[in-house]
Amino acid sequence: MEMPPSIDSRAAAEQLDREDQLAAFRDEFLIPDESIVYMDGNSLGRPPARVAEALALVLERGWSERLIRSWTEGWMDLALELGDSIGALLGAAAGQTAVADSTTVCFFKAACAALDARPGRTEILTDAGNFPTDRYVLESLAAARGLQLRWLEPADPTRGPSPAEVAALVGERTALVTFTHVDYRSAAILDMTAITQVAHEAGALTVWDLSHSVGAVEVSLDAAGADLAVGCTYKYLCGGPGSPAFIYVRRELASTLRQPIWGWLGRRDPFGMGPGYEPVEGIRAFLSGTPPILALHALEPGIELVTRAGIERIRAKGIALTGLAIALADAWLAQHGVSVASPRDGAIRGAHVALAHPDAAALCEQLAGRGVLADYRAPDVVRIGLSPLSTRFVEVWDGLSVLRELLGARRA
Amino acid sequence: MEMPPSIDSRAAAEQLDREDQLAAFRDEFLIPDESIVYMDGNSLGRPPARVAEALALVLERGWSERLIRSWTEGWMDLALELGDSIGALLGAAAGQTAVADSTTVCFFKAACAALDARPGRTEILTDAGNFPTDRYVLESLAAARGLQLRWLEPADPTRGPSPAEVAALVGERTALVTFTHVDYRSAAILDMTAITQVAHEAGALTVWDLSHSVGAVEVSLDAAGADLAVGCTYKYLCGGPGSPAFIYVRRELASTLRQPIWGWLGRRDPFGMGPGYEPVEGIRAFLSGTPPILALHALEPGIELVTRAGIERIRAKGIALTGLAIALADAWLAQHGVSVASPRDGAIRGAHVALAHPDAAALCEQLAGRGVLADYRAPDVVRIGLSPLSTRFVEVWDGLSVLRELLGARRA
Repeated sequence: MEMPPSIDSRAAAEQLDREDQLAAFRDEFLIPDESIVYMDGNSLGRPPARVAEALALVLERGWSERLIRSWTEGWMDLALELGDSIGALLGAAAGQTAVADSTTVCFFKAACAALDARPGRTEILTDAGNFPTDRYVLESLAAARGLQLRWLEPADPTRGPSPAEVAALVGERTALVTFTHVDYRSAAILDMTAITQVAHEAGALTVWDLSHSVGAVEVSLDAAGADLAVGCTYKYLCGGPGSPAFIYVRRELASTLRQPIWGWLGRRDPFGMGPGYEPVEGIRAFLSGTPPILALHALEPGIELVTRAGIERIRAKGIALTGLAIALADAWLAQHGVSVASPRDGAIRGAHVALAHPDAAALCEQLAGRGVLADYRAPDVVRIGLSPLSTRFVEVWDGLSVLRELLGARRA
Repeated sequence: MEMPPSIDSRAAAEQLDREDQLAAFRDEFLIPDESIVYMDGNSLGRPPARVAEALALVLERGWSERLIRSWTEGWMDLALELGDSIGALLGAAAGQTAVADSTTVCFFKAACAALDARPGRTEILTDAGNFPTDRYVLESLAAARGLQLRWLEPADPTRGPSPAEVAALVGERTALVTFTHVDYRSAAILDMTAITQVAHEAGALTVWDLSHSVGAVEVSLDAAGADLAVGCTYKYLCGGPGSPAFIYVRRELASTLRQPIWGWLGRRDPFGMGPGYEPVEGIRAFLSGTPPILALHALEPGIELVTRAGIERIRAKGIALTGLAIALADAWLAQHGVSVASPRDGAIRGAHVALAHPDAAALCEQLAGRGVLADYRAPDVVRIGLSPLSTRFVEVWDGLSVLRELLGARRA
């Protein structure tokens, strides 16, 4: 899908929607109020319509009728089956991805596993603009283990850390290199392959946070040689508020790396309840507690939608939607002091756009008052999330029109 | 509710059901197949009927309609509100309990927090019969920190560790004393107050696992001086398979103890996303990742049922149900080699009963084939869980009748 040379009318945006191969997917979501312009699907994806049915089914058949027998009738494998489905969206062959816990807990497990595999090394490398929970977890690990946390400050914050900048900071003391693949503020896509290679050359392991990548951009975990990855499922995978996260561990590493929270679900023969923890083979050893079955069932429809739409088409529409947002920002908002704080090159931009303005916080509140939902991200960003399966081009037009009005009224 | 002197007919069991003050609560559960005898409510509680409505509401109103706005319209506090409701069932004043993660992860957090608060001490005390996931987590912590894990072997395994046995093993090296309050196999209730006191006298902290206690027996966390506690919500609280767990931290400790997984939801001003982790005040600092909103809504009806029924009445019925099971085991099953491996004194017995038999595993399978669901617990226990709100006296009669038949047929 190419961006037309100019979009200078709402009708032109409507035309883009008519030409959109993915337009029909919007009907697969519950959208009770069409007047809301939702530009926050990267914070909380809209609910797939089939979630209601999925929950009713597990409630009425699994939990009510089959009761405890359901554990051996599918529940025990669900976290790994959905993990494989997510892995397929990320270029990961089966058997390396599991759904579990929260992103924070998965990130903690992944980072611990990596650090434990690099004893004697004393440094962790990340960037100061990384997502807060990743930074806080790394702080806790650095404090607990007496490690040094090095903060990469990219020369171009909009572009994020480059492989060369990473190369300049890694060395024989580096245990772990960890970044978010698509920046939660700027949407910049890091070069996973090159950064992983740089980390490996220094003998370090990598943990990638794919929270803003999965279901939005193409990822090739296996091909990139990534070691570990985690991500969130309530954004583009539309798993619901606080839906469980996922964790990926490269096959060769799964048998040697050990996660820190040894729980019964990661043990060989969990219902044997024997003495002594012995990790089961493969990615299942990264599970700890009982899988959240209702939440897993609620997550399945979103994964299925993304899989059916195909990540290539989703990616193309994401570039087109964010391209339109940037074009409109240039045309309408720049004169009001708004600057685009996301990459202008679609190839390195995820499915959201950061619009910087000193009054971003107040603007987000005013937008919400007008039925346009976007996210404020400190200190100065209105973040426009354009989840490709549920967002229309005309929504971008309408949302930014309201922003233009609000900014114009301020000036007046 | 007193146990009648003798129950010698199914009609007598039916009479108990008619006299049961809690009988009407059974109608508040989804029970599609009345022919199933469910003696496994301590493994997975039956679904409260209102769960369907609760899930539909959060899906249709919260997630679909209010979308991201729901976070400031209640979602951010839900984990603490439900925590307070659970705390009220456990003798914990408000502000000390949160719902989060899995029991395994909560136990990991609680144990880490306790160990970190006792630097220089080198020992953890638990019992070899403790629930597997607790044992495995303790193993992982002992390995990671170079601590010694001491396994108390109670003189009477059916009774579990006594305060005197704990006193004999704790000392100035003991950092953490941790047990399951109601044993997952025998149902023995430990003396929380006395054991906590013994631990405190040695300068150690305690973590109690309340998975088989909450919603089944009376607990007085505040009065017992307990330091930390965790528990499962999918047993007697009927939160659904893999529903989130809870964690309790005594008020005086919440500001000094630190959990190990520093996530954004436990930070002061989480949406400020600022640099540096600063724990928020109180129990909220024990949260890590985004709360599982759908699962929290599914959990609320079960907590409400238990609260409405009242823990005193639930406890009395639990004693009566398990008392009946033991009486029938004595009358019918002892002659077939079954022995009662639970305390005979109702005052120190939770809401399940362990029936020991060398062929327990096969018997559980045969019972399931006859529509009687119970749990096999290695090496030799048929575990009969009698969740007071959804289990009838006649179910105990019927279930044990089938077991008697199966045992009789074996001998024949």
